[in-house]
Amino acid sequence: MPTAELSLNLATVSRQWKLREAVAAAARHDFAGVAPWRDMVAEVGTAEAARVFKESGLRVTGYCRGGMFPAADGAGRKAAIDDNKRMIDEAAEIGAECIVMIGGGLPQGSRDLPGARAMFADGLAAVLPHARAAGIPLALEPMHPMYAADRGCVSTLAAMNDLCDQLGEGLGVAIDTYHVWWDPDLPREIARAGKRIISHHICDWLVPTRHMLNDRGMMGDGVIDFPAIRRMIEAAGYRGIQEVEIFSERWWSRPGDEVLAVAMERFRTVCRV
Amino acid sequence: MPTAELSLNLATVSRQWKLREAVAAAARHDFAGVAPWRDMVAEVGTAEAARVFKESGLRVTGYCRGGMFPAADGAGRKAAIDDNKRMIDEAAEIGAECIVMIGGGLPQGSRDLPGARAMFADGLAAVLPHARAAGIPLALEPMHPMYAADRGCVSTLAAMNDLCDQLGEGLGVAIDTYHVWWDPDLPREIARAGKRIISHHICDWLVPTRHMLNDRGMMGDGVIDFPAIRRMIEAAGYRGIQEVEIFSERWWSRPGDEVLAVAMERFRTVCRV
Repeated sequence: MPTAELSLNLATVSRQWKLREAVAAAARHDFAGVAPWRDMVAEVGTAEAARVFKESGLRVTGYCRGGMFPAADGAGRKAAIDDNKRMIDEAAEIGAECIVMIGGGLPQGSRDLPGARAMFADGLAAVLPHARAAGIPLALEPMHPMYAADRGCVSTLAAMNDLCDQLGEGLGVAIDTYHVWWDPDLPREIARAGKRIISHHICDWLVPTRHMLNDRGMMGDGVIDFPAIRRMIEAAGYRGIQEVEIFSERWWSRPGDEVLAVAMERFRTVCRV
Repeated sequence: MPTAELSLNLATVSRQWKLREAVAAAARHDFAGVAPWRDMVAEVGTAEAARVFKESGLRVTGYCRGGMFPAADGAGRKAAIDDNKRMIDEAAEIGAECIVMIGGGLPQGSRDLPGARAMFADGLAAVLPHARAAGIPLALEPMHPMYAADRGCVSTLAAMNDLCDQLGEGLGVAIDTYHVWWDPDLPREIARAGKRIISHHICDWLVPTRHMLNDRGMMGDGVIDFPAIRRMIEAAGYRGIQEVEIFSERWWSRPGDEVLAVAMERFRTVCRV
Protein backbone atom coordinates (compact mmCIF):
# COMPACT_ATOMS: atom_id res chain seq x y z
CA MET A 1 0.00 0.00 0.00
CA PRO A 2 1.61 3.27 -1.06
CA THR A 3 1.93 5.70 1.81
CA ALA A 4 1.67 8.79 -0.37
CA GLU A 5 -0.62 9.40 -3.27
CA LEU A 6 1.80 10.16 -6.04
CA SER A 7 1.60 9.20 -9.69
CA LEU A 8 4.53 9.08 -12.09
CA ASN A 9 4.19 10.81 -15.39
CA LEU A 10 6.30 8.52 -17.53
CA ALA A 11 7.89 11.38 -19.45
CA THR A 12 9.96 11.87 -16.31
CA VAL A 13 11.90 8.67 -17.08
CA SER A 14 11.25 8.34 -20.81
CA ARG A 15 14.95 8.16 -21.68
CA GLN A 16 15.72 5.56 -19.04
CA TRP A 17 12.90 3.09 -19.55
CA LYS A 18 10.25 1.84 -21.90
CA LEU A 19 6.69 1.27 -20.78
CA ARG A 20 6.97 -2.07 -18.96
CA GLU A 21 10.13 -1.17 -17.08
CA ALA A 22 8.82 2.26 -16.13
CA VAL A 23 5.58 0.85 -14.76
CA ALA A 24 7.44 -1.80 -12.77
CA ALA A 25 9.75 0.85 -11.36
CA ALA A 26 6.81 3.05 -10.37
CA ALA A 27 5.27 0.16 -8.45
CA ARG A 28 8.63 -0.66 -6.84
CA HIS A 29 8.96 2.92 -5.59
CA ASP A 30 5.47 3.06 -4.07
CA PHE A 31 3.88 5.25 -6.67
CA ALA A 32 0.11 4.84 -6.73
CA GLY A 33 -0.28 5.52 -10.42
CA VAL A 34 1.36 6.27 -13.73
CA ALA A 35 0.52 8.62 -16.59
CA PRO A 36 1.73 7.35 -19.96
CA TRP A 37 2.37 9.22 -23.17
CA ARG A 38 0.94 8.10 -26.43
CA ASP A 39 4.21 7.13 -28.07
CA MET A 40 5.11 4.78 -25.22
CA VAL A 41 1.73 3.11 -25.45
CA ALA A 42 1.91 2.84 -29.23
CA GLU A 43 5.29 1.15 -29.00
CA VAL A 44 3.82 -1.91 -27.27
CA GLY A 45 0.29 -1.58 -28.61
CA THR A 46 -2.77 -0.40 -26.74
CA ALA A 47 -3.95 -3.89 -25.69
CA GLU A 48 -0.58 -4.86 -24.28
CA ALA A 49 -0.26 -1.50 -22.50
CA ALA A 50 -3.69 -2.05 -20.96
CA ARG A 51 -2.50 -5.45 -19.71
CA VAL A 52 0.69 -3.99 -18.23
CA PHE A 53 -1.23 -1.29 -16.36
CA LYS A 54 -3.84 -3.72 -15.11
CA GLU A 55 -1.31 -6.24 -13.85
CA SER A 56 0.65 -3.52 -12.10
CA GLY A 57 -2.32 -2.60 -9.95
CA LEU A 58 -1.47 1.05 -10.50
CA ARG A 59 -3.92 3.72 -11.47
CA VAL A 60 -3.54 5.31 -14.89
CA THR A 61 -4.01 8.89 -13.76
CA GLY A 62 -3.84 10.52 -17.16
CA TYR A 63 -3.03 9.96 -20.82
CA CYS A 64 -0.78 12.50 -22.53
CA ARG A 65 -1.63 14.37 -24.50
CA GLY A 66 -4.46 15.52 -26.63
CA GLY A 67 -5.89 18.78 -27.81
CA MET A 68 -3.61 20.77 -30.14
CA PHE A 69 -6.52 21.51 -32.48
CA PRO A 70 -5.25 24.65 -34.25
CA ALA A 71 -4.20 23.96 -37.84
CA ALA A 72 -3.67 25.97 -41.00
CA ASP A 73 -6.67 24.56 -42.84
CA GLY A 74 -9.85 22.59 -42.45
CA ALA A 75 -8.19 19.30 -43.34
CA GLY A 76 -5.63 19.83 -40.62
CA ARG A 77 -8.28 20.68 -38.06
CA LYS A 78 -10.32 17.62 -39.03
CA ALA A 79 -7.24 15.42 -38.74
CA ALA A 80 -6.63 16.74 -35.22
CA ILE A 81 -10.23 16.07 -34.22
CA ASP A 82 -10.10 12.54 -35.62
CA ASP A 83 -6.82 11.88 -33.86
CA ASN A 84 -8.23 13.09 -30.56
CA LYS A 85 -11.19 10.74 -30.98
CA ARG A 86 -8.79 7.83 -31.51
CA MET A 87 -6.93 8.92 -28.42
CA ILE A 88 -10.16 8.87 -26.42
CA ASP A 89 -10.71 5.27 -27.51
CA GLU A 90 -7.17 4.37 -26.50
CA ALA A 91 -7.66 6.09 -23.14
CA ALA A 92 -10.75 3.99 -22.51
CA GLU A 93 -8.90 0.82 -23.48
CA ILE A 94 -5.96 1.45 -21.15
CA GLY A 95 -8.20 2.53 -18.29
CA ALA A 96 -6.94 6.12 -18.15
CA GLU A 97 -8.79 8.38 -15.75
CA CYS A 98 -8.54 11.40 -18.05
CA ILE A 99 -6.81 12.82 -21.10
CA VAL A 100 -4.63 15.86 -20.65
CA MET A 101 -5.44 18.43 -23.33
CA ILE A 102 -3.27 21.38 -24.32
CA GLY A 103 -4.06 24.23 -26.63
CA GLY A 104 -1.55 23.62 -29.37
CA GLY A 105 0.48 26.29 -31.11
CA LEU A 106 -0.16 28.84 -33.80
CA PRO A 107 -0.60 27.28 -37.23
CA GLN A 108 2.44 27.71 -39.48
CA GLY A 109 2.71 31.32 -40.59
CA SER A 110 -0.10 32.53 -38.35
CA ARG A 111 0.10 35.44 -35.91
CA ASP A 112 -3.51 35.04 -34.82
CA LEU A 113 -3.41 33.90 -31.20
CA PRO A 114 -7.11 34.59 -30.51
CA GLY A 115 -7.86 32.57 -33.66
CA ALA A 116 -5.80 29.63 -32.39
CA ARG A 117 -7.65 29.76 -29.10
CA ALA A 118 -10.95 29.69 -30.94
CA MET A 119 -9.80 26.62 -32.89
CA PHE A 120 -8.94 24.93 -29.61
CA ALA A 121 -12.44 25.64 -28.30
CA ASP A 122 -14.01 24.40 -31.54
CA GLY A 123 -11.94 21.22 -31.47
CA LEU A 124 -12.92 20.52 -27.89
CA ALA A 125 -16.58 20.98 -28.73
CA ALA A 126 -16.17 18.56 -31.63
CA VAL A 127 -14.64 15.73 -29.60
CA LEU A 128 -16.56 16.25 -26.38
CA PRO A 129 -19.55 14.05 -27.30
CA HIS A 130 -17.13 11.21 -28.09
CA ALA A 131 -15.33 11.71 -24.77
CA ARG A 132 -18.58 11.78 -22.83
CA ALA A 133 -19.75 8.59 -24.52
CA ALA A 134 -16.48 6.90 -23.63
CA GLY A 135 -16.58 8.20 -20.08
CA ILE A 136 -13.20 9.88 -20.43
CA PRO A 137 -12.91 13.32 -18.83
CA LEU A 138 -10.81 15.86 -20.72
CA ALA A 139 -8.41 17.68 -18.39
CA LEU A 140 -7.64 21.09 -19.88
CA GLU A 141 -4.11 22.11 -19.03
CA PRO A 142 -3.05 25.74 -19.29
CA MET A 143 0.57 25.93 -20.38
CA HIS A 144 3.18 28.46 -19.36
CA PRO A 145 2.94 31.60 -21.53
CA MET A 146 6.41 30.90 -22.95
CA TYR A 147 4.75 28.04 -24.89
CA ALA A 148 1.89 30.15 -26.24
CA ALA A 149 3.32 30.30 -29.76
CA ASP A 150 4.28 26.71 -30.36
CA ARG A 151 2.60 24.36 -27.86
CA GLY A 152 -0.11 25.72 -25.66
CA CYS A 153 -2.00 28.74 -26.94
CA VAL A 154 -4.16 28.74 -23.81
CA SER A 155 -1.98 30.10 -21.02
CA THR A 156 -4.17 30.65 -18.01
CA LEU A 157 -6.38 28.66 -15.69
CA ALA A 158 -8.95 31.45 -16.09
CA ALA A 159 -9.21 30.71 -19.81
CA MET A 160 -9.55 26.97 -19.18
CA ASN A 161 -12.23 27.61 -16.56
CA ASP A 162 -14.02 29.76 -19.13
CA LEU A 163 -13.96 26.85 -21.59
CA CYS A 164 -15.40 24.54 -18.94
CA ASP A 165 -18.18 27.08 -18.40
CA GLN A 166 -18.90 27.31 -22.11
CA LEU A 167 -18.71 23.66 -23.08
CA GLY A 168 -20.05 21.96 -19.99
CA GLU A 169 -20.03 18.39 -18.80
CA GLY A 170 -17.05 16.16 -19.47
CA LEU A 171 -14.37 18.81 -19.06
CA GLY A 172 -12.09 19.53 -16.14
CA VAL A 173 -8.73 21.17 -15.57
CA ALA A 174 -5.22 19.90 -15.02
CA ILE A 175 -3.15 22.19 -12.82
CA ASP A 176 0.58 21.83 -13.31
CA THR A 177 2.58 23.96 -10.88
CA TYR A 178 5.25 24.58 -13.52
CA HIS A 179 2.79 26.19 -15.88
CA VAL A 180 0.76 28.29 -13.47
CA TRP A 181 2.90 29.17 -10.44
CA TRP A 182 3.52 32.74 -11.69
CA ASP A 183 -0.18 33.57 -12.22
CA PRO A 184 -1.47 36.34 -9.93
CA ASP A 185 -5.01 35.04 -10.46
CA LEU A 186 -4.14 31.52 -9.30
CA PRO A 187 -5.92 31.65 -5.91
CA ARG A 188 -9.10 32.97 -7.48
CA GLU A 189 -9.05 30.56 -10.42
CA ILE A 190 -8.22 27.46 -8.36
CA ALA A 191 -11.16 28.28 -6.12
CA ARG A 192 -13.30 28.80 -9.19
CA ALA A 193 -12.19 25.49 -10.70
CA GLY A 194 -13.40 23.63 -7.61
CA LYS A 195 -14.74 20.20 -8.50
CA ARG A 196 -13.40 20.56 -12.02
CA ILE A 197 -9.87 19.89 -10.82
CA ILE A 198 -8.98 16.48 -12.25
CA SER A 199 -5.20 16.52 -12.14
CA HIS A 200 -2.57 18.17 -10.02
CA HIS A 201 0.88 17.94 -11.59
CA ILE A 202 4.02 18.91 -9.72
CA CYS A 203 7.32 20.16 -11.12
CA ASP A 204 9.57 22.98 -9.98
CA TRP A 205 10.78 26.18 -11.71
CA LEU A 206 14.57 26.43 -11.64
CA VAL A 207 16.55 29.65 -11.38
CA PRO A 208 18.15 29.97 -13.80
CA THR A 209 16.16 27.91 -16.29
CA ARG A 210 18.65 26.98 -18.99
CA HIS A 211 16.26 25.56 -21.57
CA MET A 212 12.62 26.43 -22.14
CA LEU A 213 11.58 22.83 -22.67
CA ASN A 214 13.91 20.45 -20.92
CA ASP A 215 15.18 22.16 -17.81
CA ARG A 216 12.28 21.69 -15.47
CA GLY A 217 13.03 21.10 -11.83
CA MET A 218 12.63 18.44 -9.17
CA MET A 219 10.41 19.67 -6.36
CA GLY A 220 12.55 21.59 -3.89
CA ASP A 221 15.25 22.56 -6.37
CA GLY A 222 13.42 25.66 -7.56
CA VAL A 223 11.24 28.48 -6.36
CA ILE A 224 7.71 27.08 -6.38
CA ASP A 225 5.85 27.03 -3.08
CA PHE A 226 4.24 23.58 -3.40
CA PRO A 227 2.41 23.52 -0.06
CA ALA A 228 0.81 26.90 -0.79
CA ILE A 229 -0.56 25.72 -4.13
CA ARG A 230 -1.66 22.35 -2.71
CA ARG A 231 -3.52 24.10 0.08
CA MET A 232 -5.44 26.14 -2.48
CA ILE A 233 -6.26 23.01 -4.44
CA GLU A 234 -7.44 21.12 -1.38
CA ALA A 235 -9.50 24.09 -0.25
CA ALA A 236 -11.17 23.99 -3.66
CA GLY A 237 -12.21 20.40 -3.01
CA TYR A 238 -9.54 18.28 -4.71
CA ARG A 239 -7.64 16.03 -2.31
CA GLY A 240 -6.67 13.44 -4.87
CA ILE A 241 -3.45 12.06 -6.24
CA GLN A 242 -0.64 14.31 -7.46
CA GLU A 243 1.48 13.52 -10.48
CA VAL A 244 5.15 14.31 -10.87
CA GLU A 245 6.10 15.32 -14.41
CA ILE A 246 9.62 16.59 -15.04
CA PHE A 247 11.15 17.20 -18.46
CA SER A 248 14.81 17.53 -17.67
CA GLU A 249 18.04 16.69 -19.42
CA ARG A 250 19.57 16.64 -15.95
CA TRP A 251 17.20 13.98 -14.58
CA TRP A 252 16.98 12.04 -17.83
CA SER A 253 20.73 11.50 -17.51
CA ARG A 254 20.42 9.94 -14.02
CA PRO A 255 19.54 6.31 -13.25
CA GLY A 256 15.75 5.89 -13.27
CA ASP A 257 15.67 4.40 -9.78
CA GLU A 258 17.49 7.43 -8.42
CA VAL A 259 15.01 9.78 -10.09
CA LEU A 260 12.03 7.95 -8.62
CA ALA A 261 13.56 7.71 -5.15
CA VAL A 262 14.34 11.42 -5.12
CA ALA A 263 10.91 12.34 -6.52
CA MET A 264 9.13 10.30 -3.84
CA GLU A 265 11.31 11.68 -1.06
CA ARG A 266 10.77 15.27 -2.21
CA PHE A 267 7.05 14.66 -2.55
CA ARG A 268 6.92 13.48 1.05
CA THR A 269 8.96 16.39 2.39
CA VAL A 270 8.94 19.46 0.13
CA CYS A 271 5.32 19.07 -0.98
CA ARG A 272 3.84 18.16 2.38
CA VAL A 273 0.97 20.42 3.38
CA MET B 1 12.54 65.47 -39.49
CA PRO B 2 11.97 61.78 -38.83
CA THR B 3 9.13 60.34 -40.83
CA ALA B 4 8.28 57.68 -38.26
CA GLU B 5 8.12 58.06 -34.53
CA LEU B 6 10.53 55.40 -33.38
CA SER B 7 12.93 55.50 -30.47
CA LEU B 8 15.96 53.28 -30.06
CA ASN B 9 16.43 51.49 -26.79
CA LEU B 10 20.21 51.46 -26.64
CA ALA B 11 20.36 47.90 -25.29
CA THR B 12 19.60 46.90 -28.89
CA VAL B 13 23.11 47.95 -29.94
CA SER B 14 24.90 47.81 -26.60
CA ARG B 15 27.61 45.47 -27.89
CA GLN B 16 28.29 47.52 -31.01
CA TRP B 17 28.46 51.03 -29.60
CA LYS B 18 28.98 53.12 -26.52
CA LEU B 19 26.66 55.99 -25.69
CA ARG B 20 27.94 58.72 -28.03
CA GLU B 21 28.22 56.45 -31.05
CA ALA B 22 24.82 54.90 -30.43
CA VAL B 23 23.10 58.26 -30.14
CA ALA B 24 24.79 59.51 -33.31
CA ALA B 25 23.72 56.37 -35.14
CA ALA B 26 20.12 56.74 -33.94
CA ALA B 27 20.04 60.30 -35.32
CA ARG B 28 21.62 59.16 -38.59
CA HIS B 29 18.92 56.50 -39.04
CA ASP B 30 16.02 58.90 -38.42
CA PHE B 31 15.11 57.68 -34.97
CA ALA B 32 13.23 60.34 -33.03
CA GLY B 33 14.53 59.29 -29.64
CA VAL B 34 16.75 57.03 -27.61
CA ALA B 35 16.31 55.18 -24.34
CA PRO B 36 19.58 54.68 -22.47
CA TRP B 37 20.50 52.20 -19.77
CA ARG B 38 22.08 53.25 -16.57
CA ASP B 39 25.44 51.60 -17.14
CA MET B 40 25.92 53.40 -20.46
CA VAL B 41 25.14 56.73 -18.83
CA ALA B 42 27.41 56.02 -15.86
CA GLU B 43 30.28 55.24 -18.20
CA VAL B 44 30.42 58.84 -19.49
CA GLY B 45 28.88 60.48 -16.45
CA THR B 46 25.39 61.92 -16.13
CA ALA B 47 26.33 65.48 -17.08
CA GLU B 48 28.12 64.41 -20.24
CA ALA B 49 25.27 62.04 -21.16
CA ALA B 50 22.83 64.92 -20.74
CA ARG B 51 24.96 67.02 -23.10
CA VAL B 52 25.11 64.21 -25.70
CA PHE B 53 21.35 63.78 -25.66
CA LYS B 54 20.68 67.50 -25.82
CA GLU B 55 23.05 68.10 -28.72
CA SER B 56 21.56 65.18 -30.65
CA GLY B 57 18.15 66.80 -30.65
CA LEU B 58 16.65 63.39 -29.90
CA ARG B 59 14.09 62.70 -27.21
CA VAL B 60 15.13 60.56 -24.27
CA THR B 61 12.04 58.39 -24.20
CA GLY B 62 12.92 56.33 -21.16
CA TYR B 63 15.67 55.51 -18.70
CA CYS B 64 16.30 51.81 -17.95
CA ARG B 65 15.71 50.53 -15.49
CA GLY B 66 14.45 50.96 -12.02
CA GLY B 67 12.20 49.14 -9.61
CA MET B 68 13.51 45.75 -8.47
CA PHE B 69 12.62 46.52 -4.85
CA PRO B 70 12.34 42.99 -3.41
CA ALA B 71 15.28 42.09 -1.17
CA ALA B 72 15.97 39.60 1.57
CA ASP B 73 16.11 42.14 4.38
CA GLY B 74 15.29 45.70 5.32
CA ALA B 75 18.77 46.97 4.50
CA GLY B 76 18.47 45.53 1.00
CA ARG B 77 15.08 47.08 0.48
CA LYS B 78 16.32 50.46 1.72
CA ALA B 79 19.31 50.25 -0.61
CA ALA B 80 16.97 49.61 -3.55
CA ILE B 81 14.79 52.58 -2.60
CA ASP B 82 17.80 54.86 -2.25
CA ASP B 83 19.17 53.69 -5.56
CA ASN B 84 15.86 54.35 -7.29
CA LYS B 85 15.84 57.87 -5.87
CA ARG B 86 19.31 58.45 -7.30
CA MET B 87 18.07 57.12 -10.60
CA ILE B 88 15.20 59.58 -10.55
CA ASP B 89 17.70 62.43 -10.11
CA GLU B 90 19.75 61.09 -13.00
CA ALA B 91 16.63 60.81 -15.16
CA ALA B 92 15.81 64.45 -14.47
CA GLU B 93 19.37 65.50 -15.31
CA ILE B 94 19.44 63.68 -18.65
CA GLY B 95 15.96 64.84 -19.59
CA ALA B 96 14.38 61.38 -19.63
CA GLU B 97 10.64 61.31 -20.16
CA CYS B 98 10.14 58.41 -17.77
CA ILE B 99 11.87 55.65 -15.86
CA VAL B 100 10.99 52.07 -16.78
CA MET B 101 10.32 50.08 -13.60
CA ILE B 102 10.27 46.30 -13.32
CA GLY B 103 9.26 44.14 -10.41
CA GLY B 104 12.55 42.47 -9.62
CA GLY B 105 12.95 38.84 -8.69
CA LEU B 106 12.42 36.74 -5.61
CA PRO B 107 14.95 37.49 -2.88
CA GLN B 108 17.63 34.80 -2.55
CA GLY B 109 16.11 31.67 -1.03
CA SER B 110 12.55 32.97 -1.13
CA ARG B 111 9.57 31.19 -2.63
CA ASP B 112 7.15 33.96 -1.71
CA LEU B 113 6.03 35.50 -4.97
CA PRO B 114 3.09 37.43 -3.45
CA GLY B 115 5.58 38.76 -0.88
CA ALA B 116 7.94 39.95 -3.62
CA ARG B 117 5.05 41.70 -5.32
CA ALA B 118 4.15 43.43 -2.07
CA MET B 119 7.76 44.62 -1.73
CA PHE B 120 7.57 46.05 -5.23
CA ALA B 121 4.42 47.97 -4.30
CA ASP B 122 5.99 49.21 -1.07
CA GLY B 123 9.14 50.32 -2.88
CA LEU B 124 7.11 52.21 -5.45
CA ALA B 125 5.16 53.97 -2.73
CA ALA B 126 8.43 54.93 -1.07
CA VAL B 127 10.00 56.53 -4.15
CA LEU B 128 6.88 58.02 -5.67
CA PRO B 129 7.02 61.37 -3.79
CA HIS B 130 10.59 61.82 -5.01
CA ALA B 131 9.56 61.00 -8.59
CA ARG B 132 6.63 63.40 -8.44
CA ALA B 133 8.82 66.18 -7.09
CA ALA B 134 11.30 65.59 -9.91
CA GLY B 135 8.55 65.42 -12.52
CA ILE B 136 9.66 61.98 -13.67
CA PRO B 137 6.83 59.52 -14.41
CA LEU B 138 7.46 55.91 -13.45
CA ALA B 139 6.48 53.53 -16.25
CA LEU B 140 5.58 50.16 -14.72
CA GLU B 141 6.54 47.36 -17.07
CA PRO B 142 5.02 43.91 -16.66
CA MET B 143 7.56 41.28 -17.65
CA HIS B 144 6.94 37.95 -19.32
CA PRO B 145 6.00 35.29 -16.76
CA MET B 146 9.19 33.37 -17.57
CA TYR B 147 11.04 36.16 -15.71
CA ALA B 148 8.78 36.07 -12.64
CA ALA B 149 11.37 34.33 -10.46
CA ASP B 150 14.48 36.30 -11.24
CA ARG B 151 13.67 39.64 -12.89
CA GLY B 152 10.08 40.75 -12.99
CA CYS B 153 7.80 39.40 -10.30
CA VAL B 154 4.89 41.40 -11.72
CA SER B 155 3.84 39.61 -14.90
CA THR B 156 0.63 41.18 -16.10
CA LEU B 157 -0.62 44.54 -17.26
CA ALA B 158 -3.63 43.96 -14.99
CA ALA B 159 -1.36 43.90 -11.95
CA MET B 160 0.45 47.06 -13.05
CA ASN B 161 -2.87 48.79 -13.66
CA ASP B 162 -3.89 47.76 -10.15
CA LEU B 163 -0.75 49.39 -8.77
CA CYS B 164 -1.53 52.59 -10.67
CA ASP B 165 -5.01 52.53 -9.12
CA GLN B 166 -3.61 52.02 -5.64
CA LEU B 167 -0.72 54.45 -5.71
CA GLY B 168 -2.05 57.21 -7.92
CA GLU B 169 -0.45 60.15 -9.66
CA GLY B 170 3.02 59.84 -11.12
CA LEU B 171 2.70 56.26 -12.31
CA GLY B 172 2.02 54.90 -15.77
CA VAL B 173 2.62 51.68 -17.67
CA ALA B 174 5.16 50.57 -20.25
CA ILE B 175 3.75 48.01 -22.68
CA ASP B 176 6.39 45.84 -24.32
CA THR B 177 4.94 43.51 -26.92
CA TYR B 178 7.48 40.82 -26.05
CA HIS B 179 6.30 40.64 -22.46
CA VAL B 180 2.54 40.83 -22.93
CA TRP B 181 1.64 39.47 -26.37
CA TRP B 182 0.42 36.12 -24.93
CA ASP B 183 -1.95 37.70 -22.37
CA PRO B 184 -5.63 36.91 -23.00
CA ASP B 185 -6.58 39.99 -20.95
CA LEU B 186 -4.49 42.33 -23.10
CA PRO B 187 -7.39 44.06 -24.92
CA ARG B 188 -9.21 44.71 -21.67
CA GLU B 189 -6.13 45.88 -19.78
CA ILE B 190 -4.81 48.13 -22.55
CA ALA B 191 -8.19 49.81 -22.68
CA ARG B 192 -8.13 50.12 -18.91
CA ALA B 193 -4.62 51.59 -18.95
CA GLY B 194 -5.79 54.39 -21.24
CA LYS B 195 -3.96 57.64 -20.53
CA ARG B 196 -1.56 55.80 -18.25
CA ILE B 197 0.27 54.36 -21.24
CA ILE B 198 3.66 56.07 -21.25
CA SER B 199 5.76 53.69 -23.34
CA HIS B 200 5.12 51.26 -26.14
CA HIS B 201 8.08 48.96 -26.71
CA ILE B 202 8.31 46.67 -29.70
CA CYS B 203 10.16 43.36 -30.03
CA ASP B 204 9.08 40.07 -31.58
CA TRP B 205 8.71 36.56 -30.13
CA LEU B 206 10.71 34.02 -32.13
CA VAL B 207 9.70 30.40 -32.72
CA PRO B 208 11.72 28.66 -31.52
CA THR B 209 13.16 30.93 -28.86
CA ARG B 210 16.61 29.54 -28.14
CA HIS B 211 17.46 31.53 -25.04
CA MET B 212 15.13 33.03 -22.47
CA LEU B 213 17.05 36.29 -22.23
CA ASN B 214 18.97 36.99 -25.40
CA ASP B 215 16.97 35.56 -28.28
CA ARG B 216 14.35 38.22 -28.77
CA GLY B 217 13.24 38.95 -32.28
CA MET B 218 13.27 41.75 -34.81
CA MET B 219 9.73 42.79 -35.69
CA GLY B 220 8.46 40.54 -38.46
CA ASP B 221 10.72 37.60 -37.65
CA GLY B 222 8.37 36.15 -35.05
CA VAL B 223 4.71 35.65 -34.28
CA ILE B 224 3.56 38.90 -32.70
CA ASP B 225 0.77 40.79 -34.45
CA PHE B 226 2.16 44.33 -34.05
CA PRO B 227 -0.62 46.21 -35.85
CA ALA B 228 -3.26 44.51 -33.70
CA ILE B 229 -1.55 45.55 -30.46
CA ARG B 230 -0.83 49.06 -31.75
CA ARG B 231 -4.46 49.50 -32.70
CA MET B 232 -5.50 48.62 -29.14
CA ILE B 233 -2.97 51.09 -27.75
CA GLU B 234 -4.09 53.88 -30.06
CA ALA B 235 -7.74 53.17 -29.26
CA ALA B 236 -6.82 53.57 -25.59
CA GLY B 237 -5.54 57.06 -26.35
CA TYR B 238 -1.77 56.63 -26.80
CA ARG B 239 -0.55 57.66 -30.24
CA GLY B 240 2.98 58.45 -29.21
CA ILE B 241 6.41 57.20 -30.05
CA GLN B 242 7.29 53.50 -30.07
CA GLU B 243 10.60 52.15 -28.85
CA VAL B 244 12.43 49.19 -30.31
CA GLU B 245 14.23 47.11 -27.69
CA ILE B 246 15.79 43.82 -28.78
CA PHE B 247 18.09 41.69 -26.64
CA SER B 248 19.58 39.31 -29.15
CA GLU B 249 22.90 37.57 -29.60
CA ARG B 250 21.96 37.38 -33.27
CA TRP B 251 21.53 41.15 -33.69
CA TRP B 252 24.34 42.07 -31.31
CA SER B 253 26.66 40.22 -33.67
CA ARG B 254 25.63 42.33 -36.71
CA PRO B 255 26.98 45.78 -37.62
CA GLY B 256 25.06 48.44 -35.71
CA ASP B 257 24.09 50.34 -38.84
CA GLU B 258 22.54 47.20 -40.29
CA VAL B 259 20.52 46.63 -37.11
CA LEU B 260 19.16 50.17 -37.13
CA ALA B 261 18.36 50.12 -40.84
CA VAL B 262 16.48 46.85 -40.50
CA ALA B 263 14.67 47.99 -37.36
CA MET B 264 13.51 51.20 -39.03
CA GLU B 265 12.43 49.39 -42.19
CA ARG B 266 10.48 46.77 -40.23
CA PHE B 267 8.90 49.47 -38.10
CA ARG B 268 7.66 51.20 -41.24
CA THR B 269 6.31 48.02 -42.81
CA VAL B 270 5.58 45.24 -40.31
CA CYS B 271 4.33 47.56 -37.55
CA ARG B 272 2.26 49.88 -39.71
CA VAL B 273 -1.34 50.17 -38.56
